[in-house]
Amino acid sequence: MRATVFRDAGKFGLEEVEKPRAGVGEAVVRMTLTTICGTDLHIVRGEFPVKPGLTIGHELVGVIDELGPGLEGYRVGDRVLVGAVTPCGQCHACLAGHSSQCGHGSGYEATGGWRLGNTLPGTQAEYVRVPYAQVNLAPIPEGLSDEQVLLLADSASTGFSGAESAGVRIGDTVVVFALGPVGLCAALGARLMGAARVIGVGGGESRLAVARRMGVDVVLDYRNQDVMAEVRRLTGGGADVAIEALGTQQTFENALRSVRPGGVVSSLGVYSGKLQMPYDAFAAGLGDHRIVTTLCPGGKERMRRLMATVESGRVDLTPLFTHRFALKDIRDAYELVGERSDGVIKVAIHP
Amino acid sequence: MRATVFRDAGKFGLEEVEKPRAGVGEAVVRMTLTTICGTDLHIVRGEFPVKPGLTIGHELVGVIDELGPGLEGYRVGDRVLVGAVTPCGQCHACLAGHSSQCGHGSGYEATGGWRLGNTLPGTQAEYVRVPYAQVNLAPIPEGLSDEQVLLLADSASTGFSGAESAGVRIGDTVVVFALGPVGLCAALGARLMGAARVIGVGGGESRLAVARRMGVDVVLDYRNQDVMAEVRRLTGGGADVAIEALGTQQTFENALRSVRPGGVVSSLGVYSGKLQMPYDAFAAGLGDHRIVTTLCPGGKERMRRLMATVESGRVDLTPLFTHRFALKDIRDAYELVGERSDGVIKVAIHP
Amino acid sequence: MRATVFRDAGKFGLEEVEKPRAGVGEAVVRMTLTTICGTDLHIVRGEFPVKPGLTIGHELVGVIDELGPGLEGYRVGDRVLVGAVTPCGQCHACLAGHSSQCGHGSGYEATGGWRLGNTLPGTQAEYVRVPYAQVNLAPIPEGLSDEQVLLLADSASTGFSGAESAGVRIGDTVVVFALGPVGLCAALGARLMGAARVIGVGGGESRLAVARRMGVDVVLDYRNQDVMAEVRRLTGGGADVAIEALGTQQTFENALRSVRPGGVVSSLGVYSGKLQMPYDAFAAGLGDHRIVTTLCPGGKERMRRLMATVESGRVDLTPLFTHRFALKDIRDAYELVGERSDGVIKVAIHP
Amino acid sequence: MRATVFRDAGKFGLEEVEKPRAGVGEAVVRMTLTTICGTDLHIVRGEFPVKPGLTIGHELVGVIDELGPGLEGYRVGDRVLVGAVTPCGQCHACLAGHSSQCGHGSGYEATGGWRLGNTLPGTQAEYVRVPYAQVNLAPIPEGLSDEQVLLLADSASTGFSGAESAGVRIGDTVVVFALGPVGLCAALGARLMGAARVIGVGGGESRLAVARRMGVDVVLDYRNQDVMAEVRRLTGGGADVAIEALGTQQTFENALRSVRPGGVVSSLGVYSGKLQMPYDAFAAGLGDHRIVTTLCPGGKERMRRLMATVESGRVDLTPLFTHRFALKDIRDAYELVGERSDGVIKVAIHP
Repeated sequence: MRATVFRDAGKFGLEEVEKPRAGVGEAVVRMTLTTICGTDLHIVRGEFPVKPGLTIGHELVGVIDELGPGLEGYRVGDRVLVGAVTPCGQCHACLAGHSSQCGHGSGYEATGGWRLGNTLPGTQAEYVRVPYAQVNLAPIPEGLSDEQVLLLADSASTGFSGAESAGVRIGDTVVVFALGPVGLCAALGARLMGAARVIGVGGGESRLAVARRMGVDVVLDYRNQDVMAEVRRLTGGGADVAIEALGTQQTFENALRSVRPGGVVSSLGVYSGKLQMPYDAFAAGLGDHRIVTTLCPGGKERMRRLMATVESGRVDLTPLFTHRFALKDIRDAYELVGERSDGVIKVAIHP
Repeated sequence: MRATVFRDAGKFGLEEVEKPRAGVGEAVVRMTLTTICGTDLHIVRGEFPVKPGLTIGHELVGVIDELGPGLEGYRVGDRVLVGAVTPCGQCHACLAGHSSQCGHGSGYEATGGWRLGNTLPGTQAEYVRVPYAQVNLAPIPEGLSDEQVLLLADSASTGFSGAESAGVRIGDTVVVFALGPVGLCAALGARLMGAARVIGVGGGESRLAVARRMGVDVVLDYRNQDVMAEVRRLTGGGADVAIEALGTQQTFENALRSVRPGGVVSSLGVYSGKLQMPYDAFAAGLGDHRIVTTLCPGGKERMRRLMATVESGRVDLTPLFTHRFALKDIRDAYELVGERSDGVIKVAIHP
Repeated sequence: MRATVFRDAGKFGLEEVEKPRAGVGEAVVRMTLTTICGTDLHIVRGEFPVKPGLTIGHELVGVIDELGPGLEGYRVGDRVLVGAVTPCGQCHACLAGHSSQCGHGSGYEATGGWRLGNTLPGTQAEYVRVPYAQVNLAPIPEGLSDEQVLLLADSASTGFSGAESAGVRIGDTVVVFALGPVGLCAALGARLMGAARVIGVGGGESRLAVARRMGVDVVLDYRNQDVMAEVRRLTGGGADVAIEALGTQQTFENALRSVRPGGVVSSLGVYSGKLQMPYDAFAAGLGDHRIVTTLCPGGKERMRRLMATVESGRVDLTPLFTHRFALKDIRDAYELVGERSDGVIKVAIHP
Repeated sequence: MRATVFRDAGKFGLEEVEKPRAGVGEAVVRMTLTTICGTDLHIVRGEFPVKPGLTIGHELVGVIDELGPGLEGYRVGDRVLVGAVTPCGQCHACLAGHSSQCGHGSGYEATGGWRLGNTLPGTQAEYVRVPYAQVNLAPIPEGLSDEQVLLLADSASTGFSGAESAGVRIGDTVVVFALGPVGLCAALGARLMGAARVIGVGGGESRLAVARRMGVDVVLDYRNQDVMAEVRRLTGGGADVAIEALGTQQTFENALRSVRPGGVVSSLGVYSGKLQMPYDAFAAGLGDHRIVTTLCPGGKERMRRLMATVESGRVDLTPLFTHRFALKDIRDAYELVGERSDGVIKVAIHP
């Protein structure tokens, strides 16, 4: 079968590899839709370390092709969504409620619970082997298309969890810094939870437009506005919650500076260097801040819950798909996403 | 000035009474909009005990007419919303976060924090004296009409708090039993907090219609459906949350029976007799249930937060006002509300 | 091997049965200590339905005798504690954090997650087959004796969770109604969480003595005191938390009546009939009550956490063991426990 | 009357000033015990800006000397404890539950709710005027001495809140970095909440000795141990909670590095420069961390709750008082505290 294999910084692409087989507790899923994530870009550029030879990708909608021994309640042919994080449900971290920090590692080389396209062969391939399949295969309700649910595997689950970890409440003012896919989903999540006003800060034209279309109340463009002055003007004493969705000093510091005393900074970005904690924005200001960081939660119950939310019409993620590619053209898709050209937000990769 | 005074069971109406004066920490507000609540009906029927001579009503939008000594940050002429519960902010209950159980009683005869139209002269009058005014006058944002905000004083604040106390989460299934004003607002609150599916159970035609218009996903009519069978069919293993908004054995028991193991029953109704806890629906079922009861929260910060939610367009409560009356015709309004005729939901009472 | 088998109401005792074998994901544990629980009494009296032929008992300390395929990190010979509830970690209930409501049922007839001695052969036997062993075998830290940890499997885990579910906080006043093993452990749990004052209400002489010895601040004897008058006198406006640990109308109603407005009733009892919710103690009193019910949580992470608490010396459960028996004399043990004679609290059953 | 007045960096001491009078809602309290806090040292050294002429000190036990108009439930002669933070209970921050961020500022120059010895005349004086006295006078239960309760005004309330904000649970492992008065109290708070093991990291001999005496399970001395290696060895995968109680880069970074994935860093220190967030210890590590900062909570309900905890014997803070001084010798007390000589931890200042 064909799979997108990483070889070295800048060297990656489709290769013919052996089709996986399902071991005990595992399933093989025939991919019907996957996508490219910012982390995949880091991987192919050699900025995030994985082993050469790894199949990349960690978002997956597909059809069950093979069920290993020990699974119950599934049938070959079932349409399923698989989260980016694949917890085991049986280790101390999972049992303590930190499924994204799943520590079940023997047999697999685990980095927390993120395995597909990280320590196990990923989803940008015709077939994917899913570990701990009893936990990680979420049947897709009839009537929902692949594109309606794929982003729940990572971008939307992560974005929503940024709002959930912050404990957004009815009537809150929430500022989201960076309006990439995760930031846009964080803004949606804040709205879903009852925020009275969501302020989005971003820069790309197409993303700002999508932000407005998706219901972000105030969209600020850092390219031509003093966004912090504007945030202060709009929020008075500060926002209740600031969600950071990029992972840079600038967005982190702006998030810290934009919350009111007692407010919450929820950070979703993956940082690649030392952060400064500005003296006047942190504890020294005699505040009662909270800073929470969240890694994408996984597991079929989370997927079920999020799919129910899409099914009810509360949320529509399909506007995030701006381009579609066949798997055979995945290098073109990577190029587009890497250059952020043509207003790309997310690409849908079909087999 | 004119005020709606209770004299005895069935005996009440407009009387000429002395205009109140603001003492220390108090304000007098000229009423521009008030309404009639189910509890007021209980009072005029003699079913809820208050002292004869009391001015009734506990929902208030108005204009500050007089400020007593000790108040800061307010001006005569400010438009304000006042909650049904008027906490002091300074007693043990308030400081413990239970403002609706405010125990500051000396000088006033308090029943928790509900005073207006209960132990102090109420809002169905031309002028109203507001206790602890520093805590309880919430300036109304420009651009919001009286009808947009009045219900935040009680019905909506109570209804939303039914969802908030239950901890509704993104993706939850929520069933609301009884679709009066509070139940409709509870359904709105559940939606606001991200419930994937809200099921409403009620009986009056106009209320069912408003429920559908306001976004209740499934509306069940107990007059011609086996609502519990339908709830079971729709929810499978049970709802995540059931909100009870009437205060009868039937609605309470149905709520208990409709939640999944580990689910939450949130009760807003005021009960008037002994309740049965059915054996098979409570702990004996080896469940992990939670039952929460909530009295309307008050205070200007709560009012501000809720008004921000209305201001953002997240929620529109005006469809609940089906009829409008002048204060002079308030007995007609009581008659209409008492008979539930002409599809009445809430009446707006203007001076 | 020998096992305590239920045949019919009043008919039960040791029988020779086949030693179990470990299937996929299962383990066989050689019992070194077990005990008798109040629920076991209900079973042998025919008051709680189980299938004739079932081996009873659900508390287990032992040594791993056999490991089925698919388990990692364990070795034959490891000393382990197994919880009364044996969750799978992989079903929707488990993944939603309600492990005691584990719904993984195929193959086993499950009632939530309580299986041993309920729907699977139990622990009052020489060997016990443990389902979902990856989740449910908790290695016992060196230096802890069997008697130090056995009660963490059920009585103490349940009792502590009564305090945990109630959210006991530093400075709280907590009343515990009924001082059986679970109630005594609930009192210990409230103390562990920082309650300033724990009031225990019970009746048996030996239990009241143990309560005093274990640090219950005020011990009330319902046989010769007006306990509710005393609770009111001691708490003024009511307790912050009341824990009900018996499952009767009286204890439930007393618990409801003893909390302050906004307080929490935490119910651990298993009820065997309809409960009355007294009008003046529930929502009608315009309170903001919470009622929570909790079934014993399980899983190795919970067991590890509780054993660490014992290991640190924070808690000593051994005073609860008043009598010791060999498995061959288990009928004598049942008789003693059933009659509550000789000051019995818990019996330790050795092989 | 005599008061300890700040004039300039290094210039401060007793002066004769006018005895304060109680205005509306205020009280005057005759000081019977106060103390010196680390923040006071910063003030007299000119490192924390206050206005010259300010009376310093913010911990107060005393006797009500005068009650201004508008107060209820108090009598001249009552013994009271007053928190370091004096919230109004009536502003938006207070009503939102952030009383330490009290924003009621007109008339007083407020920095959040900390006013005494900051923006209002403080407690190292014969008489102290208490703002918002209805909220801030907590009657001392009979039988408790001044020294038993004084530290609840700040050190202990702050220390405990470090554990409370972190949500310490039964069975947690908690590491406390820095064992000054606040750190020692944080360790006590973690114990009070049920932590199975509390590891304290400090350096001063007398403080390490007090830590051991007060029940810290493992005491590490950074002067002669690789404390982080030791913490790693003791905790395996990391602590559940790390409490930072000093406010330096080192303690903050150590705290971040010592928690497990999903763990909580609770920071109580007041930082005086930019902090580095180490890349490998923060979000980049794909963790789910939480960082919470807490300023001392105040108000009579908090004080009542903490005094009840002392009254029950759960906690004894008197070992922290190593030295006693009369107000007239307060400069000697400052010298001792400033030099940290003679094993000083806290000094008791009597009139």
